[in-house]
Amino acid sequence: MTTTSFTEADSATLVIERLAQCVGPLPAFLAALVRHVHQAVRETRPTQADWRRAIEFLTEVGHASDDKRQEWVLLSDLLGVSALVEEINTRRPKGATPNTVRGPFYRADAPRLASGADISLDGIGEPLVVSARVTDLDGQPVAGARVETWQANAQGFYENQQPDLQPEFNLRGVFTTDAGGGFSYRTVRPGGYAVPCDGPVGGMLHAIGYPLRRPAHLHFIITAPGFETISTHVYDGQDPHLAEDALFGVKQELVGSFRPDDGTAKGGRWSLDFTFVMVRARKERKSA
Amino acid sequence: MTTTSFTEADSATLVIERLAQCVGPLPAFLAALVRHVHQAVRETRPTQADWRRAIEFLTEVGHASDDKRQEWVLLSDLLGVSALVEEINTRRPKGATPNTVRGPFYRADAPRLASGADISLDGIGEPLVVSARVTDLDGQPVAGARVETWQANAQGFYENQQPDLQPEFNLRGVFTTDAGGGFSYRTVRPGGYAVPCDGPVGGMLHAIGYPLRRPAHLHFIITAPGFETISTHVYDGQDPHLAEDALFGVKQELVGSFRPDDGTAKGGRWSLDFTFVMVRARKERKSA
Ligand SMILES: [Fe+2]
Ligand SMILES: [Fe+2]
Repeated sequence: MTTTSFTEADSATLVIERLAQCVGPLPAFLAALVRHVHQAVRETRPTQADWRRAIEFLTEVGHASDDKRQEWVLLSDLLGVSALVEEINTRRPKGATPNTVRGPFYRADAPRLASGADISLDGIGEPLVVSARVTDLDGQPVAGARVETWQANAQGFYENQQPDLQPEFNLRGVFTTDAGGGFSYRTVRPGGYAVPCDGPVGGMLHAIGYPLRRPAHLHFIITAPGFETISTHVYDGQDPHLAEDALFGVKQELVGSFRPDDGTAKGGRWSLDFTFVMVRARKERKSA
Repeated sequence: MTTTSFTEADSATLVIERLAQCVGPLPAFLAALVRHVHQAVRETRPTQADWRRAIEFLTEVGHASDDKRQEWVLLSDLLGVSALVEEINTRRPKGATPNTVRGPFYRADAPRLASGADISLDGIGEPLVVSARVTDLDGQPVAGARVETWQANAQGFYENQQPDLQPEFNLRGVFTTDAGGGFSYRTVRPGGYAVPCDGPVGGMLHAIGYPLRRPAHLHFIITAPGFETISTHVYDGQDPHLAEDALFGVKQELVGSFRPDDGTAKGGRWSLDFTFVMVRARKERKSA
């Protein structure tokens, strides 16, 4: 009589043999996952109680996730997996603006605004003028690009975190680049913040002292026909937590310089110049 | 200015460097997991849409888990991780009865019964007499051991799956070994079954054709002071699915022989003889 002889050494092999008989693209992904999870278990040798606690944690993560809050995305973000998936899929030529993970505070339907508009609806914070250009890899302007931006206020909170304290759509707006690829708007300088740690993922990582700080930044999604969509951050180059962004988004190309504006009143008035560099969509790149 | 340079090649290293600054036993486990999950992502190269689907799946698994149903345990069971954790923690000397995963149909508070009792409360199925002994590694009887058993009915359903069709505590009971280490009871021969595939885990694995059959078996938990608890299955050696148990529990030592009883009426009457071999609890083994 034949029985499967499940041993520590061949455990993953047995599972993978079963997956090899299965159909579709999923089995290959599961097989890689199984191999690596079994290997991690062999290395760390959890007790049954440890494993039960792990299962309880996964269960809590699931229960804490709903339409408003996605703890799985947070876990994937904080352990660098989201950034890795982004990197694998949108790696760009040198000189192009890289993508970063979008983060949890995006909100669709932000208002379309004319160039120069002020997105700070409550006017609280140090004024900042953003003057930016969108070009292709050759430095040629990308006119008519759609530029969506959102950011935290000076205290590091997004309007959808503080529906009672901030006006709706505060610090959010959609702009269009002009013939020279330019757009500009007024806002306030954003504050850095810590990833919320009141859920199971943030709570666990906070408890062990894992870095949860996000250096101050502006979010952008830039779309233009024929180009790959840029979904990225521009970081405040003076933020003390620049080297330990909880979402692993900081790259040299994304660090902005918030410069004091000349000849303005005390209390701080800042300006940021930035150039976004788009690359042709992959299909066009191939056929080019 | 220093920025973290997150690239595909060093993504896991960056996360692990952060974990290395953290406190407690959890960071080492997370580091191993991170290394292996990043490696699996690099190998399988999911698109962002793939990764979103994976996150959605994890979210569904969480939402489908509650007090009555644990889809995480099911996933861990079906991908062999539970069996591996069991193997790592309760590997026993040759000759001892190995442990297997407990499965989801256990229920506490089963009735204590006298030796020879019939646990089939509805009498439906082919009668089976179980005659067993519990010994130590030297073959000496373990008297006074507590033996808990539970099993599916002839159709492969547990009473807690069919509260309206089966009597409460049908096919469950707790026995005590006599001075010779023996216990016996009457029951019906269990049917094999398939792991339920109406949840996200079973649904996904069923869709790709992953084996979900469980060969027919009896469950046992045997406890005795000074001995490691045995939590195991005894399998029907004639079951056609013996080589592909969904829970990876089948081992040579756990395969029973359901023999036709001599001189009985047609319609089937079976007997099973089995010996469980306990090992001294680890502390005592060390000090011995
Ligand atoms: Fe943000
Ligand atoms: Fe079972």
